[in-house]
Amino acid sequence: MYTYTRRAHYHETDKMGIIHHSNYVKWMEEARIEFMDHIGMSMVQLESHGISIPVSKISVDYRKPVYFDDVIQIILKVEKYSGVKAVLSYEFVREDTGETVTSAKSHHGFLKDGRVVSLKKALPEMHGYMQAAAEEDLGSE
Amino acid sequence: MYTYTRRAHYHETDKMGIIHHSNYVKWMEEARIEFMDHIGMSMVQLESHGISIPVSKISVDYRKPVYFDDVIQIILKVEKYSGVKAVLSYEFVREDTGETVTSAKSHHGFLKDGRVVSLKKALPEMHGYMQAAAEEDLGSE
Amino acid sequence: MYTYTRRAHYHETDKMGIIHHSNYVKWMEEARIEFMDHIGMSMVQLESHGISIPVSKISVDYRKPVYFDDVIQIILKVEKYSGVKAVLSYEFVREDTGETVTSAKSHHGFLKDGRVVSLKKALPEMHGYMQAAAEEDLGSE
Amino acid sequence: MYTYTRRAHYHETDKMGIIHHSNYVKWMEEARIEFMDHIGMSMVQLESHGISIPVSKISVDYRKPVYFDDVIQIILKVEKYSGVKAVLSYEFVREDTGETVTSAKSHHGFLKDGRVVSLKKALPEMHGYMQAAAEEDLGSE
Repeated sequence: MYTYTRRAHYHETDKMGIIHHSNYVKWMEEARIEFMDHIGMSMVQLESHGISIPVSKISVDYRKPVYFDDVIQIILKVEKYSGVKAVLSYEFVREDTGETVTSAKSHHGFLKDGRVVSLKKALPEMHGYMQAAAEEDLGSE
Repeated sequence: MYTYTRRAHYHETDKMGIIHHSNYVKWMEEARIEFMDHIGMSMVQLESHGISIPVSKISVDYRKPVYFDDVIQIILKVEKYSGVKAVLSYEFVREDTGETVTSAKSHHGFLKDGRVVSLKKALPEMHGYMQAAAEEDLGSE
Repeated sequence: MYTYTRRAHYHETDKMGIIHHSNYVKWMEEARIEFMDHIGMSMVQLESHGISIPVSKISVDYRKPVYFDDVIQIILKVEKYSGVKAVLSYEFVREDTGETVTSAKSHHGFLKDGRVVSLKKALPEMHGYMQAAAEEDLGSE
Repeated sequence: MYTYTRRAHYHETDKMGIIHHSNYVKWMEEARIEFMDHIGMSMVQLESHGISIPVSKISVDYRKPVYFDDVIQIILKVEKYSGVKAVLSYEFVREDTGETVTSAKSHHGFLKDGRVVSLKKALPEMHGYMQAAAEEDLGSE
């Protein structure tokens, strides 16, 4: 479990006066990248090994709007991890009230030079970090 | 069924050399708004009646990447429509090969001045247009 | 002179109810890329030769707001072109009233594999297209 | 003078492998809003008084690219402030090397309910904060 905290920017609002729903997908990526840094598996390092982590699926369940200047905590968990695929979950919580405003998931594979690859085989150390994070999150439920 | 055609912009690419996945959610909105114009229920008109159509849920299934300058057709269908809620589906197809690269869904409610409202009651004429589109799409399957 | 026509998208609005000013910079790029296609010097071709055209300077003078669903014509002219550098101007005009709402400029160099290069030397044919466009625009004033 | 620190996001990159130039305009806004919070004149407060601060002009001078994960400090100064108009400057500096990568300016007016207004008359206290910031920055040069 990793918590990424983020203030909603003015340029992310739309004419309904709320944060435009497309931005949540960007915030999920920001949370994911900071989480990866945190566990010792940074995107910069992965890319230096030719590895990228494309998104194969996302789903977002918008419950309550987010407004300009709101501070949102995004609680990220590893839902599934097989060495080849990963599913992450994201709970968006208002910092002021603790209310969950959105929940989301993303599915990922691993590519090396454009081909599907097993992270377990390609980068065993990174695989270990990811597996430890997955076990911690499964154990916490 | 309505087809929205869109060229992928340079500013939508990312360092993987592909269109960043968050942009698909914007393209879905563009397709939706052009579809609504087409059936006679424009966002500008709806907003003049105090109606907005927030997104309550989205899911996107990314199968193949889209590259800069690709021309993509987004085939929009009304999957469900009850007068109170709507589910739309989107098939992203390459114009050159006809290949489906992505499929997606969005769920919507209707708000009037911030409160959930039945489009059927609030704007019966618009409701009729939406229902006709839904029936056409259900009949086409 | 080349005119790029563009409808303002919902996802480009902000909570002031107008198109967020950062989007104008994206529209300039869209106009530029379509203009380049038009004169026979597409970005896709340039990139296949290892050439990129980074932006070295921009200025935007916002006179009147643009609203959701407005149709804007962006009139692009080549202000200066030396074979090594280019300056382009953009006039944003409302399609309905003909009113100029914004004017802007962008400055560009040419890079090949990360190094400053003369387009004139690197791609003489493309250079010819660009020079012809520049001469036409200078002659038109 | 106020320093806003910002890490470059993955979703801000483009296919050249650098941060897309349109994002700098968003970062300037983020810096401006955090600066305003800092001097006691938050956007949220201003908007509660019906005041908005549209951008009337921007210019950006891109010297060196910024890459994914780079940490950038944006040093904001009030260049001019008359009570009716403001000019702000922004120096983008790499945190690791101290190198200036970009410099920029933005020009602003003040609107109350859509009409040009003097901040000095509309909100004297806020005007005082802004004037103090301007004097400090002019004195520092």
